[in-house]
Amino acid sequence: MKLKRSSRLVDMTAYLLRHPQQVISLSYFSERYQSAKSSISEDLTIIKENFESQEIGRLQTQAGAAGGVCYMPYMGLEEVERLLSTLRQQMTQKNRLLPGGYLYMTDLLGKPDYINAIGRLIASVFINEKLDAVMTMETKGIPLAYAVASQRSIPVVIVRRSSKVTEGSTVSINYISGSSKRIQTMVLPRRSLKENARVLIVDDFMKAGGTMKGMTSMIQEFGAEVAGMAVLVETKEEQPKLVDRYVSLLKLTIPDRQETPIIENGNVYDWLPKQHVNPTKVETKDQA
Amino acid sequence: MKLKRSSRLVDMTAYLLRHPQQVISLSYFSERYQSAKSSISEDLTIIKENFESQEIGRLQTQAGAAGGVCYMPYMGLEEVERLLSTLRQQMTQKNRLLPGGYLYMTDLLGKPDYINAIGRLIASVFINEKLDAVMTMETKGIPLAYAVASQRSIPVVIVRRSSKVTEGSTVSINYISGSSKRIQTMVLPRRSLKENARVLIVDDFMKAGGTMKGMTSMIQEFGAEVAGMAVLVETKEEQPKLVDRYVSLLKLTIPDRQETPIIENGNVYDWLPKQHVNPTKVETKDQA
Repeated sequence: MKLKRSSRLVDMTAYLLRHPQQVISLSYFSERYQSAKSSISEDLTIIKENFESQEIGRLQTQAGAAGGVCYMPYMGLEEVERLLSTLRQQMTQKNRLLPGGYLYMTDLLGKPDYINAIGRLIASVFINEKLDAVMTMETKGIPLAYAVASQRSIPVVIVRRSSKVTEGSTVSINYISGSSKRIQTMVLPRRSLKENARVLIVDDFMKAGGTMKGMTSMIQEFGAEVAGMAVLVETKEEQPKLVDRYVSLLKLTIPDRQETPIIENGNVYDWLPKQHVNPTKVETKDQA
Repeated sequence: MKLKRSSRLVDMTAYLLRHPQQVISLSYFSERYQSAKSSISEDLTIIKENFESQEIGRLQTQAGAAGGVCYMPYMGLEEVERLLSTLRQQMTQKNRLLPGGYLYMTDLLGKPDYINAIGRLIASVFINEKLDAVMTMETKGIPLAYAVASQRSIPVVIVRRSSKVTEGSTVSINYISGSSKRIQTMVLPRRSLKENARVLIVDDFMKAGGTMKGMTSMIQEFGAEVAGMAVLVETKEEQPKLVDRYVSLLKLTIPDRQETPIIENGNVYDWLPKQHVNPTKVETKDQA
């Protein structure tokens, strides 16, 4: 179809948002809209400026005949603070403390709007990292893992506590739970991970970090590599953690004999890249 | 900020796609862009035409001073067939059959691109239904449930096989597994569902439908209502099912002594609404 600029802008924006972290050639858009590459380049300049000024994300463009464009989701600092502030406020409501030092988060983790925003934030931290897969342990981390993986168009692998008939042959390892010091088992289907894959570990809650450490062992077992670790909430109390170099969005303290948890920001601001993307050029004429 | 039309189109498209099934007032956009409502209406006409011609979704608009706009994700028939055809092809690969009549789908369910597309398809089926929540049973249905719920901005509630310390008090029911005829238990946190809530049940795989039936009982236990049921794959063999009026995307047959499963389309085409959205008007002048 031949489309006008206004129509191209709408369709191209929708297309880019649905295909994050995938390089799309100018030729593809040029054919899709039956428009010259120079017009497409101008469109992309407009989209790029808006994505960046509205902090929707980054557009990385490669010049030349084989040139292309790649949308990289990135959350601006203002939205980061708005998200963390909302989560802090929600999590410090009464009646959230559960026996054993846990926090009731099921309602928050049930909301796709929160989950998707958290996913975009975690993806923003790792915007410059090569990632091949996102790993989590069943069950609560699963939606977060998908939210991150969606922003990168990479697969999720789910570690389980026991093997299932629906998963074929599995690799099983033992690990020591950090808080209870008990030996536990985790399993992963053999077909899940390729050798040398760069894996981002994502989970909802970390006390001592035993599960996280177990997952790093699992990754090594497959000959793959830990590209990073991110948790939504870590506890302030259990120190030192069994893992280091992890990103936490929030930090939980449970005060003695009080009903209201204290939630602070985690270390995520130390991790957010300042210069997130290499400077890029768009092959284009002056913008109309 | 004051923005030009081209910039408004990019930002508004991104904003609408990120806020599905939410009514956004013209005043909001008018303030956001410091532009007259008449200009915003014209923008929306352009976006609406493109969303519909490109089958990105529907824009439902309400005229008048209190008017607003609502983006409803909808997958066009062409994309539906492309998606189902891809899934059929992937699922009929060798080595997918597992003991007990199960199909190995872990790799497919691990891919956010597939999961999100399947979620948009299921959301399209229920585009005209009032929905308050999406329910699934752990574990494999979870990503599908979030993918559907994301398209509607409604929460997900996850039924578990046993209660967890992190969930507070729970409601527990017994149900009979359809295929094995064994009595099983499912639990849901008390705070999960409100009375009269309209709940869409989503799962990845259905043999006799025992789990589905269990979830409908759980919904009744909360005084809520089943708004619909959808599964990715149903088996052709187990008949009749314990539930009726469910949507299936694909149907699996396991031929005797063969290594390759047969996958056909399910009943989804019977369910996709032909006239998906009521005719709507945009309050606007003639388009520039």
